[in-house]
Amino acid sequence: MGKDITKKLTDLGEQVIKQVESSENPYLDIPIRSMSNIHYDEKTGLVSLGDAKAKRYFAHIAHARKFMQTMLVASQCKKILDQEVHTSIRDLYYSIKHTIPETHEVTFEEQNESDPIIEDLEVTMDVLREQLNLNANRKGFLVGDISFTDSGDLIDASRLGSGGFSIPSNVEPEIIKFRKTNAKYVLVVEKNAVGERLNEDKFWQKNNCIIVTAQGQPSRGIRRLINRLHFELKLPIHVFTDADAYGYYIYSVIKQGSINLAYESSALAVPDADFIGLTVSDIEKYGLREYTIKSNELDNKRAQELLEYPWFKAPEWQEEIKLMLKKGYKAEQEALSGKGIKFVSEKYLPDKIRKKEFLP
Amino acid sequence: MGKDITKKLTDLGEQVIKQVESSENPYLDIPIRSMSNIHYDEKTGLVSLGDAKAKRYFAHIAHARKFMQTMLVASQCKKILDQEVHTSIRDLYYSIKHTIPETHEVTFEEQNESDPIIEDLEVTMDVLREQLNLNANRKGFLVGDISFTDSGDLIDASRLGSGGFSIPSNVEPEIIKFRKTNAKYVLVVEKNAVGERLNEDKFWQKNNCIIVTAQGQPSRGIRRLINRLHFELKLPIHVFTDADAYGYYIYSVIKQGSINLAYESSALAVPDADFIGLTVSDIEKYGLREYTIKSNELDNKRAQELLEYPWFKAPEWQEEIKLMLKKGYKAEQEALSGKGIKFVSEKYLPDKIRKKEFLP
Repeated sequence: MGKDITKKLTDLGEQVIKQVESSENPYLDIPIRSMSNIHYDEKTGLVSLGDAKAKRYFAHIAHARKFMQTMLVASQCKKILDQEVHTSIRDLYYSIKHTIPETHEVTFEEQNESDPIIEDLEVTMDVLREQLNLNANRKGFLVGDISFTDSGDLIDASRLGSGGFSIPSNVEPEIIKFRKTNAKYVLVVEKNAVGERLNEDKFWQKNNCIIVTAQGQPSRGIRRLINRLHFELKLPIHVFTDADAYGYYIYSVIKQGSINLAYESSALAVPDADFIGLTVSDIEKYGLREYTIKSNELDNKRAQELLEYPWFKAPEWQEEIKLMLKKGYKAEQEALSGKGIKFVSEKYLPDKIRKKEFLP
Repeated sequence: MGKDITKKLTDLGEQVIKQVESSENPYLDIPIRSMSNIHYDEKTGLVSLGDAKAKRYFAHIAHARKFMQTMLVASQCKKILDQEVHTSIRDLYYSIKHTIPETHEVTFEEQNESDPIIEDLEVTMDVLREQLNLNANRKGFLVGDISFTDSGDLIDASRLGSGGFSIPSNVEPEIIKFRKTNAKYVLVVEKNAVGERLNEDKFWQKNNCIIVTAQGQPSRGIRRLINRLHFELKLPIHVFTDADAYGYYIYSVIKQGSINLAYESSALAVPDADFIGLTVSDIEKYGLREYTIKSNELDNKRAQELLEYPWFKAPEWQEEIKLMLKKGYKAEQEALSGKGIKFVSEKYLPDKIRKKEFLP
């Protein structure tokens, strides 16, 4: 795997050398990642990138700096792969930031110059940044009925106490190899605290599942892990978030992919994921009205935006979002505690799963 | 342990009942947690609470609501302890939020009403919220040469791959019991990403230590775990943060305690902790000038504040902070990557530790 990626990087470099030798103006063909080239693919159920590309020239006043930066990032990625180490995108930035000799020109002023170049390379060469051995932020934890090896260490996620497995930023098959599971599904939980509650109640044991917490908007590592659990182990993915526009958006990122990383939806998203709750209908149904929070302007604005996304066009979702706007309130996962501390693990979730009461 | 705490809660309730029965205006004596009652204790090296107390009356227009809330939180904590479950402070808030029958009065409008009541109870009864089975947010991970049990599961933190042990919010001895370690010290690392780098380089194995990441300002669980590793296992604590006012403040919270939680410093802080870096002197010494960031106004304001804190009065610190102000820049831990991806794990940290080059 590492070798294929190294070859792609070498090919990129050799292509530029060839252009130089034939006295061409060196350029790269880089797929366009702006909104104009992003669409929702009904067939695959993914937010995807179109075919539009742009040439990035070396000898071009508006391109030269970015061309230089692209070469620097690509060359550093090759070094990282050759050394067989992994590094954060922040480390990468520092490792290639320098003043160009005999000038006052700095290669990168800020990390916000190197991050988009990484995305350019990912989409140009059709690789994940994880395959370039670049790590994003990590968060979240995993517990449940599954064993796997991580860098050679055998890990039994059903024997990790109250802590659980801290999900690393890179969960590619070279690092995490699944071994054995009897789980019937994966429950993705927006909040760590709710995951802790479910873990203490041994929800995963009683319900034969795996719990993954997202800690808000999930990291790439979490999304990739969910993707692998679904496609490699054929496990259904149920997502449990707050009943608010942000929670619903988190769900859509897990399911269809994000606009920012549309070019990687197929490795990160799970189009068959479904939504277990919390919904505004649940609030009525379970008598949680007292534990709701009044929506503010931003909540309503976001809910309006959700209504417009093609991936929220299913009538069930349109109904739910409109109900949220009409009622003017939202609710957190923890609102279920109003009915008792163990209500979420002993009543709400088991009920929902038994009745298959999911939103698409 | 749980029984002692239950007794304290019962005593509190019985005291109020006695006051009612003797026709007194029921009240509680609550230590004052404002800045006026907080001081730095040179002898213990801790930010500590003074002896000032205030009476909170039931029949008092300015106290009645808070008195009611205190009773509600105390009574719910007792229920949680009786049920032998743990819960987040957000769950606690929802579980006692309700409209008082036949009124429009809500017991708690927001969680920012219940959180200070928890702190009142902690300080009044001299217990940790963890002993009330209340969990704060969790973050950070641990890897290294140590084994322990967590809720009965045996965990060997030297065999947890690239992920590591996700540090739970509650690490009290009832939950986490240390078993065996050959580690010589604990390295506390501000950032997860830097912890990942050190873990991949097996820094803890080569240097016989335990790595704990703080993920920014450390959670209570992390602070308590560091405190226990130090006092129970006699392990020195070395702290590694960014070279900026925020990083230095993180260090001081780990070492002397925080102003907010001054009443719990003795359970959470480690007065003997020392600071390994990054310092502004390091920037000169290791040639990292190119990887620094210009300080902004807020950075300078914070640095000025640090100069005034009694716990930063050591001449070494005064010098470092003044140097930072003079140079007008700060640097992140990742700046060390400018010298090579493995510079931090193979050169910088081992050098510092061998030479015992620590700030007090």
